[in-house]
Amino acid sequence: MEPGSRGAAPGGVSVSAVLPAGGSGERLGGATPKQFCAVQGRPLVSYAVWAMERISWISDVIVVVSPENIETMKTIIEKYGHKKVTVVEGGITRHRSIFNGLKVFAENGFSSHLLQKPEVVIIHDAVRPFVEEDIVSKVVMAAKEHGAAGTIRPLVSTVIASAADGCLDHSLERARYRASEMPQAFLFDIIYEAYQQCTDYDLDYGTECLHLALKYCKTNAKLVEGTADLWKVTYKWDLYAAESIIKDNLSQQVCVITNVRETLAQVGFLLPESLKSQIKVEAISICPNKNDNRLQNIISGQCYNFVCVNDKRCAIQEIQELVDMLDKSNIPLLYPVVLILVHLDISENNSFSIGMEELTAIKKFARETKKKNILVYGLLIQCK
Amino acid sequence: MEPGSRGAAPGGVSVSAVLPAGGSGERLGGATPKQFCAVQGRPLVSYAVWAMERISWISDVIVVVSPENIETMKTIIEKYGHKKVTVVEGGITRHRSIFNGLKVFAENGFSSHLLQKPEVVIIHDAVRPFVEEDIVSKVVMAAKEHGAAGTIRPLVSTVIASAADGCLDHSLERARYRASEMPQAFLFDIIYEAYQQCTDYDLDYGTECLHLALKYCKTNAKLVEGTADLWKVTYKWDLYAAESIIKDNLSQQVCVITNVRETLAQVGFLLPESLKSQIKVEAISICPNKNDNRLQNIISGQCYNFVCVNDKRCAIQEIQELVDMLDKSNIPLLYPVVLILVHLDISENNSFSIGMEELTAIKKFARETKKKNILVYGLLIQCK
Repeated sequence: MEPGSRGAAPGGVSVSAVLPAGGSGERLGGATPKQFCAVQGRPLVSYAVWAMERISWISDVIVVVSPENIETMKTIIEKYGHKKVTVVEGGITRHRSIFNGLKVFAENGFSSHLLQKPEVVIIHDAVRPFVEEDIVSKVVMAAKEHGAAGTIRPLVSTVIASAADGCLDHSLERARYRASEMPQAFLFDIIYEAYQQCTDYDLDYGTECLHLALKYCKTNAKLVEGTADLWKVTYKWDLYAAESIIKDNLSQQVCVITNVRETLAQVGFLLPESLKSQIKVEAISICPNKNDNRLQNIISGQCYNFVCVNDKRCAIQEIQELVDMLDKSNIPLLYPVVLILVHLDISENNSFSIGMEELTAIKKFARETKKKNILVYGLLIQCK
Repeated sequence: MEPGSRGAAPGGVSVSAVLPAGGSGERLGGATPKQFCAVQGRPLVSYAVWAMERISWISDVIVVVSPENIETMKTIIEKYGHKKVTVVEGGITRHRSIFNGLKVFAENGFSSHLLQKPEVVIIHDAVRPFVEEDIVSKVVMAAKEHGAAGTIRPLVSTVIASAADGCLDHSLERARYRASEMPQAFLFDIIYEAYQQCTDYDLDYGTECLHLALKYCKTNAKLVEGTADLWKVTYKWDLYAAESIIKDNLSQQVCVITNVRETLAQVGFLLPESLKSQIKVEAISICPNKNDNRLQNIISGQCYNFVCVNDKRCAIQEIQELVDMLDKSNIPLLYPVVLILVHLDISENNSFSIGMEELTAIKKFARETKKKNILVYGLLIQCK
């Protein structure tokens, strides 16, 4: 699916997202605000934007940054080819920044043009790079029904209240409480009204959007159990952890592509079956030279490596199309995509020398694609 | 200082530690309980044990593990040369395990012999590998004065309470609450009495030792602000993060050793000064062939690499002693120790060929020490 095109939103509502990215990253202990810190060479905020942008039914992604980072953010959008993003200048606190982000849909003068007001608005953090469409969808559905919804996680530590003398006052029973995480979602009119009505004290010292919806609109948010990887990058080691999670994900997904001819379709069935126990595999069979929708979906969705099985000599033309699609998707900007070409030669008159010629052609092709951060490997199987 | 010898405890009290390590590691998503997961090839629990054991004024470290892991724990103690550890069989919950650990100091039959009851007992987690002597000392001092003390950290997420219908009931004001972390410390008699008096419900469903001291002994624990790296390894990516923190620490500490002769003492002053801006440096001057206490302290304390500056030809004998000390300390078991030998030759009759001979000897020496995971590099500076 082309970035920018719109799929069906859960419950048929229109949906946009606001990402506050104005934090200073004090706790990270570095000069760079954490949302601009690089993970695998790419700023954290770009992952969070991509996590929203790749969901076809999200129309606009508003990124709210502090004035001094607007140019940085625009450069990131340019470099990583983000298509749905509007950059907005933030306020001095988190709540003020989110409010500014929401105003883009309701008031003139906050961006170059007034954006179409969504029925449901998602609020997500720029420093939570991992969020699956599934959980976003659940939160949006719950927001449609209840007016507000937020993800939660079990508490990792006991929470305690201290007295004025710096001693323990009481501890909370851990099982009764939850950590409030992101994403959250709201009927736009509810959260916008809450922000319009709330006090300066709320805007300056509050942090919790669910609390505003409750206090000013009497909306008790539905709480949705989130996955462990929704966690927020807070400290320096969270960056290391994020990097490791990304690397882990990369190495565990592969897409096997075969064309629809009988012999190959069979390989296309057997190979994924044997790989499945070890890595996440998607298998598709497509007609040669057909620009297949499923393939586009895979490329614009998750990160995959590819195994392409074919029985045609010189399949480089077809592979070139796949390389072009990958290149256009901007995925290889982030990390190298591995593309393994398997040529299954079962013709009567196959010969070693023809096979070698083909491998030489693939080698030359690989040199070219390597510049695009796409690593092509060729494998020739001849059987008579 | 020899492991096992006793330095002066803060406030002159006797101190021991209990480490509950009976958890099943469900949240980590693997089969191995997290305390036994390897970080840089060494189980997490071994880091936590070492963090306590290296503090000279801690007498005993009680590690409480579930019955099926007792042998594993004993193997770890053997392999990493832990000297102060007693392994105790845990109960089915965290509180029951800690209680078992405390009984070793108060009742017969919980270990091969009754251990000397400490005035203050530290309770720390086996899955918090990073804790500095400084914070342990603060918690012990506070426990001596207040009867109980615990480390705290600011909350990362807002804490919310949910209603029976799965909707938000209320959110807590983040600034008023803290996350309760480890280590905690108690006057032994207080926490032991609390455990003796508490109900089965407490033992089965409670998690917070500070709460027991408050409820059963009316002791309001002193809360001590902890450092960010006290965090608990909970999820798989925390292991990645722990690994990165260890690697980070390794590369950033160096000990510069010179002998006490005037020229070298000067180098021993100038070199650390110029290194200080980039890495953590300790500098010591010692008489050649003197087994210096400060050096022993450094080796049995933090993880350091070493730069040894000398002006004596063939200083290998002295270096051999340092290598032996490092080898005995078990530090190189964990990670390679880098040892840079700088020979400053300012004699009138120095010559290139003699210098080369010496470097050859160091090269041979380095091959031997490499087997012990100690990497020796030689640097010769001749000036007339």
